[in-house]
Amino acid sequence: MRNSAILLVQCPDRKGLDATIADFVYRHGGNILHFEQHQAGEERFYLARVEWDLDGFQLDLKDFPEKFTPIAEQFSMTWRIALSSHRPRVAIFVSKHDHCLVDLLYRHRNGELACDIVLIVSNHSDAGRHAEFYGIPYYVIPVTRENKPEAERQELELLWKNKIDLIVLARYMQVLSPDFIAHFPQQIINIHHSFLPAFVGGKPHLQAYERGVKLIGATAHYVTEVLDDGPIIEQGIERVSHRDEIEDLVTKGRDIEKVVLSRAVRWHIENRILLYENKTIIFE
Amino acid sequence: MRNSAILLVQCPDRKGLDATIADFVYRHGGNILHFEQHQAGEERFYLARVEWDLDGFQLDLKDFPEKFTPIAEQFSMTWRIALSSHRPRVAIFVSKHDHCLVDLLYRHRNGELACDIVLIVSNHSDAGRHAEFYGIPYYVIPVTRENKPEAERQELELLWKNKIDLIVLARYMQVLSPDFIAHFPQQIINIHHSFLPAFVGGKPHLQAYERGVKLIGATAHYVTEVLDDGPIIEQGIERVSHRDEIEDLVTKGRDIEKVVLSRAVRWHIENRILLYENKTIIFE
Amino acid sequence: MRNSAILLVQCPDRKGLDATIADFVYRHGGNILHFEQHQAGEERFYLARVEWDLDGFQLDLKDFPEKFTPIAEQFSMTWRIALSSHRPRVAIFVSKHDHCLVDLLYRHRNGELACDIVLIVSNHSDAGRHAEFYGIPYYVIPVTRENKPEAERQELELLWKNKIDLIVLARYMQVLSPDFIAHFPQQIINIHHSFLPAFVGGKPHLQAYERGVKLIGATAHYVTEVLDDGPIIEQGIERVSHRDEIEDLVTKGRDIEKVVLSRAVRWHIENRILLYENKTIIFE
Amino acid sequence: MRNSAILLVQCPDRKGLDATIADFVYRHGGNILHFEQHQAGEERFYLARVEWDLDGFQLDLKDFPEKFTPIAEQFSMTWRIALSSHRPRVAIFVSKHDHCLVDLLYRHRNGELACDIVLIVSNHSDAGRHAEFYGIPYYVIPVTRENKPEAERQELELLWKNKIDLIVLARYMQVLSPDFIAHFPQQIINIHHSFLPAFVGGKPHLQAYERGVKLIGATAHYVTEVLDDGPIIEQGIERVSHRDEIEDLVTKGRDIEKVVLSRAVRWHIENRILLYENKTIIFE
Repeated sequence: MRNSAILLVQCPDRKGLDATIADFVYRHGGNILHFEQHQAGEERFYLARVEWDLDGFQLDLKDFPEKFTPIAEQFSMTWRIALSSHRPRVAIFVSKHDHCLVDLLYRHRNGELACDIVLIVSNHSDAGRHAEFYGIPYYVIPVTRENKPEAERQELELLWKNKIDLIVLARYMQVLSPDFIAHFPQQIINIHHSFLPAFVGGKPHLQAYERGVKLIGATAHYVTEVLDDGPIIEQGIERVSHRDEIEDLVTKGRDIEKVVLSRAVRWHIENRILLYENKTIIFE
Repeated sequence: MRNSAILLVQCPDRKGLDATIADFVYRHGGNILHFEQHQAGEERFYLARVEWDLDGFQLDLKDFPEKFTPIAEQFSMTWRIALSSHRPRVAIFVSKHDHCLVDLLYRHRNGELACDIVLIVSNHSDAGRHAEFYGIPYYVIPVTRENKPEAERQELELLWKNKIDLIVLARYMQVLSPDFIAHFPQQIINIHHSFLPAFVGGKPHLQAYERGVKLIGATAHYVTEVLDDGPIIEQGIERVSHRDEIEDLVTKGRDIEKVVLSRAVRWHIENRILLYENKTIIFE
Repeated sequence: MRNSAILLVQCPDRKGLDATIADFVYRHGGNILHFEQHQAGEERFYLARVEWDLDGFQLDLKDFPEKFTPIAEQFSMTWRIALSSHRPRVAIFVSKHDHCLVDLLYRHRNGELACDIVLIVSNHSDAGRHAEFYGIPYYVIPVTRENKPEAERQELELLWKNKIDLIVLARYMQVLSPDFIAHFPQQIINIHHSFLPAFVGGKPHLQAYERGVKLIGATAHYVTEVLDDGPIIEQGIERVSHRDEIEDLVTKGRDIEKVVLSRAVRWHIENRILLYENKTIIFE
Repeated sequence: MRNSAILLVQCPDRKGLDATIADFVYRHGGNILHFEQHQAGEERFYLARVEWDLDGFQLDLKDFPEKFTPIAEQFSMTWRIALSSHRPRVAIFVSKHDHCLVDLLYRHRNGELACDIVLIVSNHSDAGRHAEFYGIPYYVIPVTRENKPEAERQELELLWKNKIDLIVLARYMQVLSPDFIAHFPQQIINIHHSFLPAFVGGKPHLQAYERGVKLIGATAHYVTEVLDDGPIIEQGIERVSHRDEIEDLVTKGRDIEKVVLSRAVRWHIENRILLYENKTIIFE
């Protein structure tokens, strides 16, 4: 397991950015493992991800902010630092379709996802036995139109008490309120079972079937106030034909959803995603 | 070159359909090469494509309708028969983006498309030299808001005079009038440079760029009165990333558009496409 | 759940084959749902899959062989009939890599695979808890160079006693003896973690890494005496780059292996696969 | 058109590499557009591509080597610098299958390939009219077993006289001698019509057909002394089925070959490819 630090930076482009950052790491004895930068849009907004080996790095990470702030201010940077050894605390929300949940749990056990899956929330009890099998606490919080504010309050309390860093909506069929979402900006990942922006909203497989598309898709995105409109993290597709009934689309869809969602979650917890104007930059 | 007949049938499903059709071919000495049928929708509407070797077939194709009509009436069939040796007469419409045109011309020369490309219509003179190289008549018919009805009249005259069976809109940037379209039902194929129904209308690459999708697509479809809403024949996609500028999407898009459009044209001229409720059945 | 019969036929091509088969079904009151035929090779060898609704079919399936044999003899057919309601009895063999096993068990529970998973055999105890979770008997039969004949004898006994129709090698890392294989012709499906015929044998990911390929693959095939040389049922690929270490290839490979193997198993149990000259015909 | 410089560096990894390079560019007034580095193998060999805007760069490129050499020596770098405005001089070799040639010529005219296509060599006259259409000199140099050394001598002379930087074998069906190849190390790109290392050598489509694969591929690679064994630059695949005859594989193959080869050529001329141990690092 690599012991490294990851610095994520974004700011208006200026000469000397790469040199200044690389030099800062070097001066403190860090060996840079990955240096990736991107210049977005016509104004060439600067975004970078720098990862270095902590072996030999002479700056205590506690002191990093103090030392780095002058540089950050000089370039008007927005930045944050993360440790590869830090395991984000993840909550998974699920309804009855549990394929993404089970897939994430298996991958996690397999070592693919360097996070702690702390708890599972569902409005149904169905997926409980998988949670039990993998030893993850499972909370059933039914949601109706009437009790929704109260249900979200319970959920929020649970999330806060457990210091959750990331919420994964693994085919959770409830729409979260803007209020709820506002508490977790760029910290909620949803899997939508269509190739967004095609087939927004409910029943995308039915919509796809009726339109007669030849490919179906899935989209992992950050959740924002506008339904199915948040920044897209990853998408995948699978071929379908006239022989496929709606149930076949559902079945084929599951395979795409699992791969797409798990990839998005991995990129997030490995600090590979930056946002710029409702779009994601993925430093793979 | 195979010398075969292709029968396309659609009707409400009933027992004995396959047996009756296969028997009809057999009784007249035909050896069936391909027999494919499909039952669409909940009501299991029957659609079939039957292809048989004409070598040894004892029925003159001129007499086919008379002999087959009793069967067709018995089962309330809609049907048509085609010869693999018949080369549909194709007109290609193009604007300034000539990659699909050039691709179709090359494939045609290469023997991939068993049709005659009879003429090319464009609202610009740009692609004329390619037409000349491949020896295809090229008609420049400029279109403005004002002269559109007159321009379409010229086009229709040209198409009728040349007995055109199929119009291919190879990135023709003009919207055809409902009147024009009505003359060629299921005989106009368009390539749209997005994964429909995402990004309907103009500038789909710009829309895709702004939405930040991770895959771009192209869609070949029959043209109907409603813009970009006709039955989808084929779709393709290509991966993009934050590194791709709009021009990169345009470039990557070209590769998909060429493959998707040429495949749709080939399926059409090989009589592999049937329609059911705004959807295509492709007998590959 | 559809209640249908599936007839699989292969024989030298002759006129009247489709008519004779379709007529046979019709005469006994069957409504054909799917009729697909293929003519393979230069000699146009005939292979067909015919599926009809048993609702209204007036022939008892017990009497089918007697009634159909005259036709079969007339055309020198090899044939078999299957019921969609028949659930093949499947044994899964696994070693330590349990991703394909877990995937198959989940799909099975989800209703994607219309078979009975009767037992699991492994040379390690590791995957036992998954077997237990899904309630499938799990037999640990360690294999060493010395005890291999004895181990295979145990396995065969288990398979026979349980009337196993299909063996799925879900990343079972042992090579089966020709003797063992001979007992289950076209009844053993293996998943090989490369795009065959590239990287035959052990350690395909290492071979792929060292060759520097840009795509990795997986191949599901029937097991024959020659290692990794049996008829290919399905293949899939995933993109890799210079950034992928061997472990990344392994991780990416798992996603392809699961999809490819489960598809092959499904096609087999749905009687969609015919063999012709070491190649598969898949009637999708 | 961007006016930038590209520095390609490889050396054993050491602390301070990124800082030193970025600082060098910064000190001379360059604004870095892209900085990508990779650490290959277990020994973490350092490879980097740095691109900066020449607008404002105060070092004359003629003086670059002198100024940069001390740094290069300090870190034992192998390096080279290129200008984005420099258009490599390309020769295309072709036989009778001219689809890749025509595709490259069209893309070149379209502005996708920032190089000069200086000449075309063929052992057949067939593709001459395409060369003429695009205004590229076309040299017919027939090759037989007997005249091969003499033919290669003619080719070399032509290449030298025209100061060719890159040779593209666009389905050139002749095997070049080791002698010839030695003159152009990492300067010859070939398209092989299979997914290497499967189906090395001649007739890969026939081999693929006989093995019954479900995907066919194409591979662009640098040519080395060992046939079809050079570093792989790019690969692509397309789905095939039992319905595809060899001619269909050939047809489908063409579409992959065009995309894969043109991508490899573009990456090469944009100085995006570094080599490490017979593998390519592609800085996309």
